[in-house]
Amino acid sequence: MKKYCLGVDIGGTTVKIGLFDKDGKVLDKWEIVTRKDEGGSFILSDIAASVDDKLKQMSIDKSAVIGMGLGIPGPITSDGTVLKCVNLGWGIFNVAEEVTKLTGIENVKVGNDANVAALGEMWQGGGKGYQNVVMITLGTGVGGGIILNGKILTGSKGAAGEIGHITVNFDEEDTCNCGKRGCLEQFASATGIVKEAKRLLLVSDKSSKLRDLQYLSAKSIFDAAKEGDELANDLVDQLTRYLGVAASHIAAVVDPEVFVIGGGVSKAGDILTTRIKQNYEKNVMFALQNKEFKLAELGNDAGIFGCAKMVLD
Amino acid sequence: MKKYCLGVDIGGTTVKIGLFDKDGKVLDKWEIVTRKDEGGSFILSDIAASVDDKLKQMSIDKSAVIGMGLGIPGPITSDGTVLKCVNLGWGIFNVAEEVTKLTGIENVKVGNDANVAALGEMWQGGGKGYQNVVMITLGTGVGGGIILNGKILTGSKGAAGEIGHITVNFDEEDTCNCGKRGCLEQFASATGIVKEAKRLLLVSDKSSKLRDLQYLSAKSIFDAAKEGDELANDLVDQLTRYLGVAASHIAAVVDPEVFVIGGGVSKAGDILTTRIKQNYEKNVMFALQNKEFKLAELGNDAGIFGCAKMVLD
Repeated sequence: MKKYCLGVDIGGTTVKIGLFDKDGKVLDKWEIVTRKDEGGSFILSDIAASVDDKLKQMSIDKSAVIGMGLGIPGPITSDGTVLKCVNLGWGIFNVAEEVTKLTGIENVKVGNDANVAALGEMWQGGGKGYQNVVMITLGTGVGGGIILNGKILTGSKGAAGEIGHITVNFDEEDTCNCGKRGCLEQFASATGIVKEAKRLLLVSDKSSKLRDLQYLSAKSIFDAAKEGDELANDLVDQLTRYLGVAASHIAAVVDPEVFVIGGGVSKAGDILTTRIKQNYEKNVMFALQNKEFKLAELGNDAGIFGCAKMVLD
Repeated sequence: MKKYCLGVDIGGTTVKIGLFDKDGKVLDKWEIVTRKDEGGSFILSDIAASVDDKLKQMSIDKSAVIGMGLGIPGPITSDGTVLKCVNLGWGIFNVAEEVTKLTGIENVKVGNDANVAALGEMWQGGGKGYQNVVMITLGTGVGGGIILNGKILTGSKGAAGEIGHITVNFDEEDTCNCGKRGCLEQFASATGIVKEAKRLLLVSDKSSKLRDLQYLSAKSIFDAAKEGDELANDLVDQLTRYLGVAASHIAAVVDPEVFVIGGGVSKAGDILTTRIKQNYEKNVMFALQNKEFKLAELGNDAGIFGCAKMVLD
């Protein structure tokens, strides 16, 4: 009998689901809405129902499903307990046990969404061929996932890889979403670089294309930098300097083989990895030099790949 | 037949050797000189001979020895290869294989000295009862060892836990031993705090007991701080602030349960752990707050304990 597994990446807006064969090939992928009413209590049963429908539709018997992996946007301990998940309205409970109850699938693995995305990129994306991978996701916030010897590093309370909250600027007066000041996320996220641009445009006398734009975005800033705009380049310099410094801190702790840069901001391309690497090499001791910096390759699918990989391991 | 194992901590001046029973009790410990002549080529054979003598003396048959663990002052990969060890004059070779050849002992484990000390402290010292431990050793330099789920984190090139070279001051103009600038080691080592004291005494107008001392040491600075000396307290503030900041970076990467502070400077006692923790909590996000900060307990024996633990695991 052919065997299958499921990868389920739960986001604040949609749940992405992938059906894989046991060799890790995607056979189908689809999305459902994340119903956040009543403390998110319908989310897991919606997933169970959607999976049941899909399996029936494809005439796959449930006994052929060897497991389900789930990615959750919050801290998860190694036994599959979610500690708090503001984005879904969830409190503390064991997600793995609940999913087994709802689906009858015994082999359920649960991980933090940034961590499973890192695992996905290690397996089939920018980190392919490596076993020790640090993924940095530059989106609305800055997320991180750390893979050591091919496995997700969870940390003692599920907060390993919270690298968006490494302090990189001790003079910052604005407060980060986490409550403290000077976090990497305040400068290197899509939101952060736009905020920094607005701040710089106010105090700088430099002429810049950015002054003519009605709507500033991370993309417009990187585009202007590539066209030689000096002020945009100053912004890219600051963002890549903070990322290079943070990467140097991370390397001194876990000594990875490769950094994989993902998230919306990473669409800027090689300008990002090249400049982060320059700043990294400047700030790291000799024993940690010459690491690879690569772009993520799986986009929004990294999560479902990582979820499948948790089950297949 | 009773079973035994050996822990061998190779330092630049002496080699510490411990004979343990299989429950981890130390039966005997002794030291030999580290002969560094001819590229350190006698070190391992000296150890083999000393161990042979001891076993004969105690009428222990070699077949009762279940293994030997060694700690080396340099980067070691997970298969026991030393990559370079300036302190011993060693180049690149597989230490584990060489030791097996010299001693006939099959089960040989090799680790970096700072890492095995961390493992020792986790097992029988300040980190007892925990599985996720970061040890920071404040000696002539600043070393680090990271234990995750009870195992040493080696890193892809043996350089995990090189936390003495996390950059903490981007304005520093003096160069660290590692070649770059602003490393934690430049401020938080025994050497570093004395250098900082001399610097501060030159530029500060504050009166201080430290001005009357012929010989400044980390101990004299901490002693003065405990007696209320304002300038000495400024120095302790700076040292503990940099250590707290570095600990916050480390936590955002691996989310440990406890930080264990060892090395000569740690003889300063609770003033050190209390103030590092204050600075840590200020610089870390909520999900990583409330970690334990403890003093190391095994002193110079941490290495042989960790070496034995590598074999017994």
